[in-house]
Amino acid sequence: MAMEYTGLFVTFEGTEGVGKSTLIREVAKMLRQIKVRNIITREPGGSRTSEKIRQIILSADGIDPMSELLLYEAARAEHVTKTILPALRNGVTVLCDRFSDSSLAYQAYARGLPWSQVKTLNKIATKGISPNLVVLLDVDPALGLRRAKDHNRFENEGIKFQKRVRMGFLKARAENPRRWLVIKPDARSTPADLAKEVLARIRKINK
Amino acid sequence: MAMEYTGLFVTFEGTEGVGKSTLIREVAKMLRQIKVRNIITREPGGSRTSEKIRQIILSADGIDPMSELLLYEAARAEHVTKTILPALRNGVTVLCDRFSDSSLAYQAYARGLPWSQVKTLNKIATKGISPNLVVLLDVDPALGLRRAKDHNRFENEGIKFQKRVRMGFLKARAENPRRWLVIKPDARSTPADLAKEVLARIRKINK
Repeated sequence: MAMEYTGLFVTFEGTEGVGKSTLIREVAKMLRQIKVRNIITREPGGSRTSEKIRQIILSADGIDPMSELLLYEAARAEHVTKTILPALRNGVTVLCDRFSDSSLAYQAYARGLPWSQVKTLNKIATKGISPNLVVLLDVDPALGLRRAKDHNRFENEGIKFQKRVRMGFLKARAENPRRWLVIKPDARSTPADLAKEVLARIRKINK
Repeated sequence: MAMEYTGLFVTFEGTEGVGKSTLIREVAKMLRQIKVRNIITREPGGSRTSEKIRQIILSADGIDPMSELLLYEAARAEHVTKTILPALRNGVTVLCDRFSDSSLAYQAYARGLPWSQVKTLNKIATKGISPNLVVLLDVDPALGLRRAKDHNRFENEGIKFQKRVRMGFLKARAENPRRWLVIKPDARSTPADLAKEVLARIRKINK
């Protein structure tokens, strides 16, 4: 489906506790400073029904993996229709904490569902939209897990799982490398340093 | 995916208020009388997480149609894994109030989502199982709506919508007619009469 919109769609991906939220807030601040209207949203969630679905996902220990994936996709379809597309159509840049590449990394690569089925479901749920830019915050998963304050089910699955998730992101990137920006912070990087990398890349995007 | 199981999987479909629940209970009773072990289950629902998803679906006015479909499919995947397949593998006959053909009739035919996408999602969510028999209780939708006590969102969409749903079931049946039993009760039919028709057909199924 061809969609016409004028906002820029930027998603932020990474394993747990790598500092995505901090980076997104910093990017939003810098965009406001240069008068680029933007919103921050997140998956799963980002709309009323999607937040309810998020509660089911985060509390459903032992859920069937395909059912979990379908819940993410249901939340995504609602999120795209109710939040992301209206913003983009109004010329607003959307900064989204996780999107369809998380389904590839978590549900396909790390959990073992077929990569092609996850791609099929992503395509159906996103109604043809895809990010103009995917920012992968690539931090050693061991470091990320130590920093994660808000322990949830995924974080509890430990370091081996997070390493598989990271490999999943790299596989997704390999399918479309020009759309991705991989940021590898070192010990001295501040959130502002990382956000400047994102801003520099956003400026280069020819829509 | 090839699944080996020995129970029989029978689904019951129809528009709102046609008397599916009564018929299912009657069939279950007759099966017990001839020592056929069986369970009754329903969609959306039939497992702990699926019942939570059911609550979201039934309360989500104005939900994106694709999101609604994905919620049904998520509930279905969990229902198949946790309830239906274990029963079938134990040789138990499963009597299920609505299954994947309801998604075709409601979400595809009546709501207008692409038929082929709904079939793709049905296939993914059901993990390769399909009913041995689909019983369609084909009652005039106007009569059904008058009888429906428990008004929900679908019933409120009225008679035109229910007529489209009925056409959707007939289209699904046309794709695989030998698997379907269409029952058209007349004014004098008792639930026991209808259940006998189902039992006669179940006896004929060569698995």
